[in-house]
Amino acid sequence: MSSTLGTNYKISIFGESHGTAIGAVIDAPPPGLVIDMNQVLVQMARRAPDGKDGSTKRVEADTPHIQSGVLERDGVLTTTGAPLCVLIQNTNTRSSDYQNISHIARPAHADYTGYIHYSGYNDIRGGGHFSGRLTAPLVFAGAVARQALVQMGIRICAHIASIGDVCDAALDPCNIPSDVADRLSHSDFPVLDAVQEKLMKNEIERARMDADSVGGIIECAVTGIPAGIGAPIFDALECKIAHAVFGIPAVKGLEFGAGFELTKMRGSTANDPMRMQGDRVITTSNNNGGILGGITNGMPVLFRAAVKPTASIGLPQQSIDYAKNCDADLIIKGRHDACIVPRAVPVIEAAAAVAILDEIMAEGKYA
Amino acid sequence: MSSTLGTNYKISIFGESHGTAIGAVIDAPPPGLVIDMNQVLVQMARRAPDGKDGSTKRVEADTPHIQSGVLERDGVLTTTGAPLCVLIQNTNTRSSDYQNISHIARPAHADYTGYIHYSGYNDIRGGGHFSGRLTAPLVFAGAVARQALVQMGIRICAHIASIGDVCDAALDPCNIPSDVADRLSHSDFPVLDAVQEKLMKNEIERARMDADSVGGIIECAVTGIPAGIGAPIFDALECKIAHAVFGIPAVKGLEFGAGFELTKMRGSTANDPMRMQGDRVITTSNNNGGILGGITNGMPVLFRAAVKPTASIGLPQQSIDYAKNCDADLIIKGRHDACIVPRAVPVIEAAAAVAILDEIMAEGKYA
Amino acid sequence: MSSTLGTNYKISIFGESHGTAIGAVIDAPPPGLVIDMNQVLVQMARRAPDGKDGSTKRVEADTPHIQSGVLERDGVLTTTGAPLCVLIQNTNTRSSDYQNISHIARPAHADYTGYIHYSGYNDIRGGGHFSGRLTAPLVFAGAVARQALVQMGIRICAHIASIGDVCDAALDPCNIPSDVADRLSHSDFPVLDAVQEKLMKNEIERARMDADSVGGIIECAVTGIPAGIGAPIFDALECKIAHAVFGIPAVKGLEFGAGFELTKMRGSTANDPMRMQGDRVITTSNNNGGILGGITNGMPVLFRAAVKPTASIGLPQQSIDYAKNCDADLIIKGRHDACIVPRAVPVIEAAAAVAILDEIMAEGKYA
Amino acid sequence: MSSTLGTNYKISIFGESHGTAIGAVIDAPPPGLVIDMNQVLVQMARRAPDGKDGSTKRVEADTPHIQSGVLERDGVLTTTGAPLCVLIQNTNTRSSDYQNISHIARPAHADYTGYIHYSGYNDIRGGGHFSGRLTAPLVFAGAVARQALVQMGIRICAHIASIGDVCDAALDPCNIPSDVADRLSHSDFPVLDAVQEKLMKNEIERARMDADSVGGIIECAVTGIPAGIGAPIFDALECKIAHAVFGIPAVKGLEFGAGFELTKMRGSTANDPMRMQGDRVITTSNNNGGILGGITNGMPVLFRAAVKPTASIGLPQQSIDYAKNCDADLIIKGRHDACIVPRAVPVIEAAAAVAILDEIMAEGKYA
Repeated sequence: MSSTLGTNYKISIFGESHGTAIGAVIDAPPPGLVIDMNQVLVQMARRAPDGKDGSTKRVEADTPHIQSGVLERDGVLTTTGAPLCVLIQNTNTRSSDYQNISHIARPAHADYTGYIHYSGYNDIRGGGHFSGRLTAPLVFAGAVARQALVQMGIRICAHIASIGDVCDAALDPCNIPSDVADRLSHSDFPVLDAVQEKLMKNEIERARMDADSVGGIIECAVTGIPAGIGAPIFDALECKIAHAVFGIPAVKGLEFGAGFELTKMRGSTANDPMRMQGDRVITTSNNNGGILGGITNGMPVLFRAAVKPTASIGLPQQSIDYAKNCDADLIIKGRHDACIVPRAVPVIEAAAAVAILDEIMAEGKYA
Repeated sequence: MSSTLGTNYKISIFGESHGTAIGAVIDAPPPGLVIDMNQVLVQMARRAPDGKDGSTKRVEADTPHIQSGVLERDGVLTTTGAPLCVLIQNTNTRSSDYQNISHIARPAHADYTGYIHYSGYNDIRGGGHFSGRLTAPLVFAGAVARQALVQMGIRICAHIASIGDVCDAALDPCNIPSDVADRLSHSDFPVLDAVQEKLMKNEIERARMDADSVGGIIECAVTGIPAGIGAPIFDALECKIAHAVFGIPAVKGLEFGAGFELTKMRGSTANDPMRMQGDRVITTSNNNGGILGGITNGMPVLFRAAVKPTASIGLPQQSIDYAKNCDADLIIKGRHDACIVPRAVPVIEAAAAVAILDEIMAEGKYA
Repeated sequence: MSSTLGTNYKISIFGESHGTAIGAVIDAPPPGLVIDMNQVLVQMARRAPDGKDGSTKRVEADTPHIQSGVLERDGVLTTTGAPLCVLIQNTNTRSSDYQNISHIARPAHADYTGYIHYSGYNDIRGGGHFSGRLTAPLVFAGAVARQALVQMGIRICAHIASIGDVCDAALDPCNIPSDVADRLSHSDFPVLDAVQEKLMKNEIERARMDADSVGGIIECAVTGIPAGIGAPIFDALECKIAHAVFGIPAVKGLEFGAGFELTKMRGSTANDPMRMQGDRVITTSNNNGGILGGITNGMPVLFRAAVKPTASIGLPQQSIDYAKNCDADLIIKGRHDACIVPRAVPVIEAAAAVAILDEIMAEGKYA
Repeated sequence: MSSTLGTNYKISIFGESHGTAIGAVIDAPPPGLVIDMNQVLVQMARRAPDGKDGSTKRVEADTPHIQSGVLERDGVLTTTGAPLCVLIQNTNTRSSDYQNISHIARPAHADYTGYIHYSGYNDIRGGGHFSGRLTAPLVFAGAVARQALVQMGIRICAHIASIGDVCDAALDPCNIPSDVADRLSHSDFPVLDAVQEKLMKNEIERARMDADSVGGIIECAVTGIPAGIGAPIFDALECKIAHAVFGIPAVKGLEFGAGFELTKMRGSTANDPMRMQGDRVITTSNNNGGILGGITNGMPVLFRAAVKPTASIGLPQQSIDYAKNCDADLIIKGRHDACIVPRAVPVIEAAAAVAILDEIMAEGKYA
């Protein structure tokens, strides 16, 4: 019943799309962590709707204001180890866009389910607490977590594996060079193949022209993670990552390594052969996505998340009025992202970062 | 760091494949729940390796012995509301089968990762705490949970959606009749299409003949669940189910509703149209798998889990000796399931039952 | 490792004495709860240092600013059921008072232990996250919880049972009339006996004149709580209340009912005789403080908390410099409460309210 | 709603007085811990009712049977790091003793509150899950925890501070020599002053002769614990210990250091002066019980728990029949401890051990 995740790097997310502010409490970052706010802002900007191709034109500042848990020490922002609260003001909301929705549920949104769950008391303006805007504090928490992880040599990057039917080139599951990881994790439209990027953007543009929307798949890699992180059964690293990633609105699928493709392989192909590489244990393929028995094996952790097409579309839709209990048709006005996949990339990375740092801290292995 | 799940119907699983006993504590079933042990045993038997087609021949009793939390009242077994501990003795273990494994890691198993995680102290006989045998107490906990849920009209059933490339017919995502649900949830090889069943069994038999293995997809449906169960963000019902399902060994993927297929749809197709059916809100398609904004909408909850091919195969494999830090090849002796998918069906159902009952109880909606 | 409490009415407290702001996230109040902000401000004011007898003169606004989780509906402030974040700005801080403390630990404060725990990174200005000021968001969360509880007929009140050796009259443990409860829970110096109040204030004034401090005992009663709330063993209501109350700085003891006095009674005296009063079960004494086996019996829940004398005193003290690792004497400058007991009363009440509402919600008994 | 405690050394207790077995799952002990079963049995025996002075004569074996989580390695019992389940069979139960109780509540017991909480479904034989017998698995978990702690130089001991009005000599709060700690933690009636021991036993014998009972205070010390363990606010070490200790039936009070006596001291006396002792920070008194701001300061952690007189007495008592809703008088037959304080000593020590090991593991400081 809560928007809370984790034990040692616990995050508690709050806010509504059109309320005073959204934000999060992180309880707590490791003490003494230097926060590079520029890097945080880069991640916030990747998620923010700023007029990039395919994203909504509503301008939001999304500037994080840290309320607690940090000190300026020797000119650098450093965590104290106490809970860090971040606030992001809501501004420039045009609630008139949402006036005509009233109690007609937007299909594929949480309007009706939220109404039932909260007995009709929830804030429905702009989706309220269900809004995709609530991923902004998650990106903040992830950006801080990444800075902690990178000190251990752990990097997180993702690319857009597909938009509709258009697929990017594949990541090498056994070897993701740092420069590729760095480039992807700073890009607004991270792909490996520039030709496919163009085709993807065309796909999005076509959907927009049709007042429709399109989804896609995000593939995420965690490199440099040591073997031994995770646990059997319900504390499997897959459980931890899944719990975080399915908390992101619009994610409807998740697979590790070869995932659903594994079901079509025989064991002799699926099983990743093991070899020594110097004094390091490696596998020569990575169908298991770097996790065996819920525990990392030292190979990159790989997962893919399915992001459904934006629920808000401009076409007329069949719906119901949940106050009047009658059928009602609906046209959603206002501008909306024809595709949220590019903006979802930093959110997926953030969810992974938060889940992995929490696990590492819970195991007493943060150093 | 624990084999524990849930808050109100909390389960804590313990044991190793070749230890004294395995089992679980359920803290706690609702008081006054009548337990039909025959139904529990049916579910245990579906999971147990009993010489059914495609399963290992090792005979295990898998009889659950309840230690606490129940009373015989008026001739029926009734929960008291106190923690229920169930024990399943380990018998007939042939550890000699595992003698020659020593410290050569079985690929795609947790031998190496468990060794690192537990600093070399874990019990490796038969996979120890990582063994698929540890799903037996989960099936028990699920069987009890199902009996609580069915009193609320909630049924859980699953079928084998595919084995390798062979696919079953599709479930109607909007309407799963009780008799179909009942038949599937009592079957040892639950499929909708008998012709496909034969092809699936052939596929398994071919893998066995090749000393190889094959995986598959299990599709699970939860019917009769009322609208309003779940919560936004990290307490989304998807998060709860994912946390439970990824705790099952060999599950490497999970999708809700149309899942990854959603990424290829446009919003106008993906969005499930809403209509009133009498005084009930329904959707005329169910691409979102009965969950919007993390909360049920009253339609069947649908998800599909990818089960990788059995890691233990009879073919020679490349591996390493993690004690000697050198390459080492490996042939796994003994009999093993060529396909664990049929036995995994009741485990998937159990994970869903446990996650959903826990959520319903945590919301104070169990009645 | 966290400043978080509870499961269903979960609070996450953040902030430092001299940081930007302090506050809390409450995840989440029951939806549809009308919040009377005047009543909230009354409780905040009881805790605030506002120049009342015996309290520090530092003026702090302590105005709570709600960021999320509420809507103005029909002219009244109503919870939505989403997480409620409250912010209290820090203003008018005079950090120069703390300049000369540097790394000389203030005895009986957390200066040294915080330094060790946080590896030297914690914010020491004004005690940082350890400051008594962090009880302000707890009082807010308690004030909201009380408004939810009172709708079920549950009231929480406390009085100052003693200051030093001066004792108030005793509460009747079996019967606390509503008017008494109301008067106490709105008073700045809640006592039953006006003569003792004068003596208590004299005791505080004498300590102040001596540049010293004095402690006391707070007795708290929860009336109208139905039988059946709580659970055996570690979810005993005593555990829940204790976990909350020992989270308040300066509390060093807690007893339920007759508490330590019970150890001097024989069972024949200690055991509370039971009788029917109409169709209600009562006890004719209440030595067990309304809790048996961790569960309420329908009598008032009673507990007493020991509050140590204010750690900050004006007299010279022996200490150490934890940066230089040498002995160092210390005189704490600035004004400080000679006795924090009166201001601690609403904090104790708040902790009880939060713990009890959380338990009632977790049991699905909130109505 | 659960009999579960902790995060990293999580214990889940199950069973009823007259059920098949009681026990606990510990999820999980640190891997590689050598368990000295003799030392475990010593602690189990201290708690067991074995005909020692003042204890009930019912003979119970209380032999712990480990089901999982250990391996015999090189002739020694070693934890694997997987969940450890321990089972203690219930034998020799004479339920006829309880036949005449039926639905007349035993005053100061949980009969009535359990009946309400569990809607009448709980097992009332011998107190069911509320029975003091459920402390046996806690003592087991504590005995294992102590063996982990002692490797870090942390010892836990307690003595009987008082029985009724008879008080033992005081522990030196700043210095508890290892030999004293060892003697106390192996004694069946641990006291410092042999003369007082005799008077205490007389006090118990007098109560027994009167068919009555008597309570007492147990003082517990944790020595060798390093500075820095614990956290501010709700993860204060006081919170953790209180949560565990109030889970023990019959405990109705808890104080740290000078506790309630602190309320009568002035700050100038209560504040423990700090000094360097070589390169170690000490305090020259220990009124704060080794904890400041919720965090250890390196001095012994000291607390005192109030144990109420045994609720079961042989004298006639006023009660009610909660099935018939009428007044009913009661005489409890059978033999019962006139004083459970001596048997509660190892239980208190165990609760402290479990709470402290869990905190140390959660902070990643177990080594």
